[in-house]
Amino acid sequence: MSFSVVATDGAARRGVLQLPHGPVETPAFMPVGTAATVKALSARDLVEIGAQIILANTYHLWLRPGRETIVEAGGLHRFMGWERPILTDSGGFQVFSLESRRELDDEGVTFRSHIDGSTHRFTPESVVAFQESIGVDVAMALDVCVRLPATTADLEEAVRITTLWARRCATAWSKRERTLLFGIVQGGLDSALRSKSVSELVAMDFAGYAIGGLSVGETREEMERTARACADALPAEKPRYLMGVGTVRDVIAAVDAGIDMFDCVYPTRCGRNGRAMTRSGELHIKNAAFVRDYDPLDSSCDCMVCKTHSRAYLSHLFRAKEMLGPQLLSYHNVHVLVRLMAEAREAIGAGAWRVFRDSALLRAKGSPPTPRSAEQ
Amino acid sequence: MSFSVVATDGAARRGVLQLPHGPVETPAFMPVGTAATVKALSARDLVEIGAQIILANTYHLWLRPGRETIVEAGGLHRFMGWERPILTDSGGFQVFSLESRRELDDEGVTFRSHIDGSTHRFTPESVVAFQESIGVDVAMALDVCVRLPATTADLEEAVRITTLWARRCATAWSKRERTLLFGIVQGGLDSALRSKSVSELVAMDFAGYAIGGLSVGETREEMERTARACADALPAEKPRYLMGVGTVRDVIAAVDAGIDMFDCVYPTRCGRNGRAMTRSGELHIKNAAFVRDYDPLDSSCDCMVCKTHSRAYLSHLFRAKEMLGPQLLSYHNVHVLVRLMAEAREAIGAGAWRVFRDSALLRAKGSPPTPRSAEQ
Repeated sequence: MSFSVVATDGAARRGVLQLPHGPVETPAFMPVGTAATVKALSARDLVEIGAQIILANTYHLWLRPGRETIVEAGGLHRFMGWERPILTDSGGFQVFSLESRRELDDEGVTFRSHIDGSTHRFTPESVVAFQESIGVDVAMALDVCVRLPATTADLEEAVRITTLWARRCATAWSKRERTLLFGIVQGGLDSALRSKSVSELVAMDFAGYAIGGLSVGETREEMERTARACADALPAEKPRYLMGVGTVRDVIAAVDAGIDMFDCVYPTRCGRNGRAMTRSGELHIKNAAFVRDYDPLDSSCDCMVCKTHSRAYLSHLFRAKEMLGPQLLSYHNVHVLVRLMAEAREAIGAGAWRVFRDSALLRAKGSPPTPRSAEQ
Repeated sequence: MSFSVVATDGAARRGVLQLPHGPVETPAFMPVGTAATVKALSARDLVEIGAQIILANTYHLWLRPGRETIVEAGGLHRFMGWERPILTDSGGFQVFSLESRRELDDEGVTFRSHIDGSTHRFTPESVVAFQESIGVDVAMALDVCVRLPATTADLEEAVRITTLWARRCATAWSKRERTLLFGIVQGGLDSALRSKSVSELVAMDFAGYAIGGLSVGETREEMERTARACADALPAEKPRYLMGVGTVRDVIAAVDAGIDMFDCVYPTRCGRNGRAMTRSGELHIKNAAFVRDYDPLDSSCDCMVCKTHSRAYLSHLFRAKEMLGPQLLSYHNVHVLVRLMAEAREAIGAGAWRVFRDSALLRAKGSPPTPRSAEQ
């Protein structure tokens, strides 16, 4: 397992992360498969889309189906029928999203299941052991994630425990040939705290570093500034992962800051709700303007949905509440981000990143495509 | 367009129906795409499964998205992104399923939309024109379908109007090179009425004949006896279509009676509800016995789902209420019937139909596969 940067253009970088289940060319978008399924998409869909790696969640898998079932199935890859790399989040974010239901101490965190109310406990060791036992390619250290805005005291405490736990995770990390372990930088929007968190984690020599605690209530500018500062401070030879980012604008800005990996539920959640991402803005397919619009979602898109179906058909599926609507829109939206990253890699390799970035941002800020029926 | 029988074995027959959008080898199962979508399956899924022809419903398409939209889109094939043949039911069955909401006269039937309560009227001419205008390969004549049990008087009246309308449909049938028109035999379980209906329709020389008014409340034995008698009486050189049949046992019995085509919502409806069809019975994937069963749904099945996923994974998807569960089970169930028909064609061609039939019926009557976890 190795990470190599093959080209840079400004802070943006193109690389390859070699993992046990294959290579991941970066920058890469990771579709989110929380409960061992990227919602509405089959493994075959994801391969066809070109997804190189997907994300799953320790919190959800721990509760259901549970470690025993996944291990008995032969690991998470075999359980879900996905042969390419998998990264699991540590569950820190999920546990701290359920604030009323958890109790934190220096040793770990006790929480109640959102499914049946049963009590569970995460420790740095148990979370690393879980991820290693289900055989993921990349595991995340257990962290404490704070919703923004937050007090400096709360952020300091989160960084203190995150560092404490990161050290214990690094010690517990045993299957180094099979599972990489990434540390997670915390510190909210406080640059001194972020800097402290980076230094403490980098001293532990993780295989990669994630920037956590963003996309949790701050503005886009605050997010970009913090992500850029963290990326600058992280070692150049290790992969950098910005957690929870997945709009076209945010991903482009993050690549520009030197980030290599992203994940977000945004494309699949939007897809289920009838919102289509395009590279020139978003459109809501339930809008009456699309009922008799026979153009594809995005005429510049070469995905199965855009090659086969019109906005009018997708509009019909959503109006008729047919499952195929969410399925097709999720497929298209994930494809948009996967293809955007493929083009970003090309641009970085060709030394044309700035032009690509500015053009992509300009289009993304623009209005969504005009419905054909509105033109008539 | 032509139909040719290429082999027979007893009453069972193997044939090829040449249609504008390609050939259909018979016997063939037609997955149901009521509202221009086979629920939970993409056009690409259906091609991969090997579906040769699908069914859609005049009633549903008339109401939503409506004729204008489909015609503007370039016809039903382009609207739904399906390049192989399509057969549409005439809407008779749907209108007469909504008994309280329709008024029948000799000229046609007036009914209220189940979507918005608006009033619509079907006549033999309007239904043929609708199906021709959206460019389907096979259209059905408008018929009167009676729920069983029914009085002889009701069945007589249904046959009288069905014949009257069939004649008007045959006269209205104008695009003979683009759309075949099939008549629909009615008459309930009354053999004299069925015989009368067959004679009257055959005199009109339709391109094919459907046996309607079954799978509407009668026993399996009554259904089989009536379907067999109708098939015997229908001309050998025309395709025979048994409407609404789609369990393994019923399809095998119908092929044995000399039927060439079938449709049913059964495989997709079961799939959405967690019921998996296998050739040795059915299994309910939500059953606790499958939670840690790592075998495929059916070890003799070569579909994408059985090659990729275990019962344990499918059980997890249904327990977690993930959309992918219904998607994968619908895919598998449709594949079961499509492959069963491919094997039936082989058997008929090889003069081995009886052995195949008896073996298939024996397996289908048996218990579903034993869960692995129950064996332990």
